[in-house]
Amino acid sequence: MRVTALAGGFGGARFLAGVVAEGHEVTAVVNTGDDLWLHGLKVCPDLDTVMYTLGGGISAERGWGREGETFAVSGELAAYGFGPAWFGLGDRDLATHLIRTQLLEAGQSLTDVTAALCARWRPGVTLLPMTDDRVETHVVVDDPETGTRHAIHFQEWWVRHRAALPAHAIVPVGAEEAKPTPAVLQAISDAEIVLLPPSNPVVSIGTVLAVPGIRDALLAADARIVGVSPIVGGSPVRGMAAECLTAIGVETSAQGVAAHYGARSAGGLLDGWLVDSSDPCEVEGIAVGALPLLMTDLDATRAIVRAAIAL
Amino acid sequence: MRVTALAGGFGGARFLAGVVAEGHEVTAVVNTGDDLWLHGLKVCPDLDTVMYTLGGGISAERGWGREGETFAVSGELAAYGFGPAWFGLGDRDLATHLIRTQLLEAGQSLTDVTAALCARWRPGVTLLPMTDDRVETHVVVDDPETGTRHAIHFQEWWVRHRAALPAHAIVPVGAEEAKPTPAVLQAISDAEIVLLPPSNPVVSIGTVLAVPGIRDALLAADARIVGVSPIVGGSPVRGMAAECLTAIGVETSAQGVAAHYGARSAGGLLDGWLVDSSDPCEVEGIAVGALPLLMTDLDATRAIVRAAIAL
Repeated sequence: MRVTALAGGFGGARFLAGVVAEGHEVTAVVNTGDDLWLHGLKVCPDLDTVMYTLGGGISAERGWGREGETFAVSGELAAYGFGPAWFGLGDRDLATHLIRTQLLEAGQSLTDVTAALCARWRPGVTLLPMTDDRVETHVVVDDPETGTRHAIHFQEWWVRHRAALPAHAIVPVGAEEAKPTPAVLQAISDAEIVLLPPSNPVVSIGTVLAVPGIRDALLAADARIVGVSPIVGGSPVRGMAAECLTAIGVETSAQGVAAHYGARSAGGLLDGWLVDSSDPCEVEGIAVGALPLLMTDLDATRAIVRAAIAL
Repeated sequence: MRVTALAGGFGGARFLAGVVAEGHEVTAVVNTGDDLWLHGLKVCPDLDTVMYTLGGGISAERGWGREGETFAVSGELAAYGFGPAWFGLGDRDLATHLIRTQLLEAGQSLTDVTAALCARWRPGVTLLPMTDDRVETHVVVDDPETGTRHAIHFQEWWVRHRAALPAHAIVPVGAEEAKPTPAVLQAISDAEIVLLPPSNPVVSIGTVLAVPGIRDALLAADARIVGVSPIVGGSPVRGMAAECLTAIGVETSAQGVAAHYGARSAGGLLDGWLVDSSDPCEVEGIAVGALPLLMTDLDATRAIVRAAIAL
């Protein structure tokens, strides 16, 4: 089946592994709002997490970055007093950013650069950045030292502060002026089914949807759109999604996220919504399915994928 | 004493360590013709060799790059198929290039960037690039595969081919349009003595002298100019200087190099010339001193420095 999925990093990558294992032809439209320039290098955390996970290079322990990673360069940058120290820039990972930066500076699009990197990793999916334009998610917080309200890069909020600073707003800076790539629009219109993996509904899926044209393309698509809830037993499976949902006034529950995405019949996105067995959910116009949603291993993930497609 | 020295990498760095140990106030005017852009990063081999050597970070075994170096990034670049594989870009070393590139791209001069890097290494000398402009030494060779005559970057000739391809010409590309920095001219005019360490007379000292204005500043300086021969027992102390001398038609001997630099009284550079005891040398107008010139340890190097200054 031709599957197009919107995706963030960790959850999206795991889910996509299940979709690939089920033998589908997959295109992943990946959030680039987490991207940042670090030491003059373009870093794309979500694209890389998906690429490394599906290509067999991910650190199984951390869920981001490379297996067998070393941090010699970071240690040296710190010795020079060049921050930020909070971003774990591994040596192996850095080679990816060096190549990406060079190719971008040579005038290639992020889409083409991603394809060039995937020529090594062979992730088994077509990996597409949501846009070739620059979008950077920022979070409005009160500075813990001074109390001043200001915006910081999403990565600084997420990695440095571990989302512990209350977020007054989460803004995908540049999204309004960004354009989805032709490849993204094509993948959505060509899809036989569109899946929303259990990625962060705000800073992953939400950022993809913030690129003008993507939501319209989804609404216009022939394919059904089925989402998989990122909530299990009332809390996010991984990390700090609750803080993001709170920031945009959405309840951290399968019901809350479903209502946020909305029923397609009522101008929203979802035809179907897969929730964990422990999270009852009912939204008018959305077909709801329930099963255990923890992606504990590939078999569990494949079962989730099958259930989502069956919906 | 206020000493200004022109310098390349390995030989210059060792010699400068002796000058510093003798308690002099040293400014080093360093060749930047070996510099290259690699993976989008500005690499300055001679500046770094001097900085690392005098700052205690050099690999004692290799004489270039960092002690305790690892090569994770290079390994990954190769796995992506991104060359060149022949340049040993270490992880620790790479941090220096990342910072340098960022600061250059932020608009700082190479002189200022070098000072910023030296804030960490505290080499004990004022380290000045010969120019803030781009100069890249190229070597005209016959391609070993095709036989076609073409120019390659000095580093490719030196590191990849180990200078084994006969050089038809050695050209410091960009030197004619380059300007010495005000700091370089000041260091030359303020010097109480100018030393030419036993660096490569062609691609190190020769490249510095190829920047218009530097030779004139030396000729106009009040200070005496004393050179130390890079030849010991009829051959270069280190590596492949003979190939460079041959390329410009200079005999590989203490006598040949002295004649190439020339007597200051005859429009050349040298007031004094220090040769190895085994290399007799006589040039009209140049005071010649002789002692063992192998810089086997710091004490030997200090003795050479004292002899050069005494000349």
